[in-house]
Amino acid sequence: MNLYQRGSIAVIFCAQRTQNDDESYSAAANAMSDLAAKQPGYLGQDSARSADGLGITVSYWENDEAAKAWRDHPDHSAIREQGRGKWYERYTLHVTRIERSYDWIK
Amino acid sequence: MNLYQRGSIAVIFCAQRTQNDDESYSAAANAMSDLAAKQPGYLGQDSARSADGLGITVSYWENDEAAKAWRDHPDHSAIREQGRGKWYERYTLHVTRIERSYDWIK
Repeated sequence: MNLYQRGSIAVIFCAQRTQNDDESYSAAANAMSDLAAKQPGYLGQDSARSADGLGITVSYWENDEAAKAWRDHPDHSAIREQGRGKWYERYTLHVTRIERSYDWIK
Repeated sequence: MNLYQRGSIAVIFCAQRTQNDDESYSAAANAMSDLAAKQPGYLGQDSARSADGLGITVSYWENDEAAKAWRDHPDHSAIREQGRGKWYERYTLHVTRIERSYDWIK
C-alpha cells in the first residue's frame, strides 16, 4: 500500500481459484512474489484473497518494459502454465498506467 | 472479472480495515457498490478481501469524467467520511488507464 509516480505501470490480476492443491499453490505464489520483487523495475504489490477463492493481486512497475520482462520471465511462464492446469478457474489481467494516486492514514 | 476497452479507467482502492462495526461496514459497502453501478459510465468492479482485513476493490469506468463524478457524488463523499472515521486504518487509491487486457477461462 504505497504511492507510485504518475506513468508507473499497475498490473491488475483478478483470479478465481479452483479448490485444488492449496499447499502447492501457496508455495508457488510466495515463490513468485519473492522472485517478482527481485526483478528490475519492480516497485511493489498489493494482494487480497476472499474466502471464496477470488483473489486480486496488483503489481507495480517502473515502466512497461519491466512489466513485460516479468511476464516473459521463464520461471514465471512455467508457473503460469501450472496455474492454468490446476489452480485457476479463470482470470483477467489488466495492464494499466497510473494517472494519479492518493493515500490516507488514520 | 471482465475485459474493458483500452483507454478505460480502472480505480484501484486498497484498504486496511479496522476491527470496528463489521455489520454497518458491510451494509455501507453493499449500498455503495449498488449506487456505483447506477452511475453514468460505470463498467464494473472486482473486489477481494483477506481475512486480515486487507481489501482491494477495482472499479472500472468509461472515462475519467465518470470516475471523478463518482468520487464527487454526495452519498459517496458522505460514506467516505464515515469510512475514515471508523472503518479504515489506511488506504491507497490509484487512478489508472487501461492499456491492454487479457483473460483466460479453463
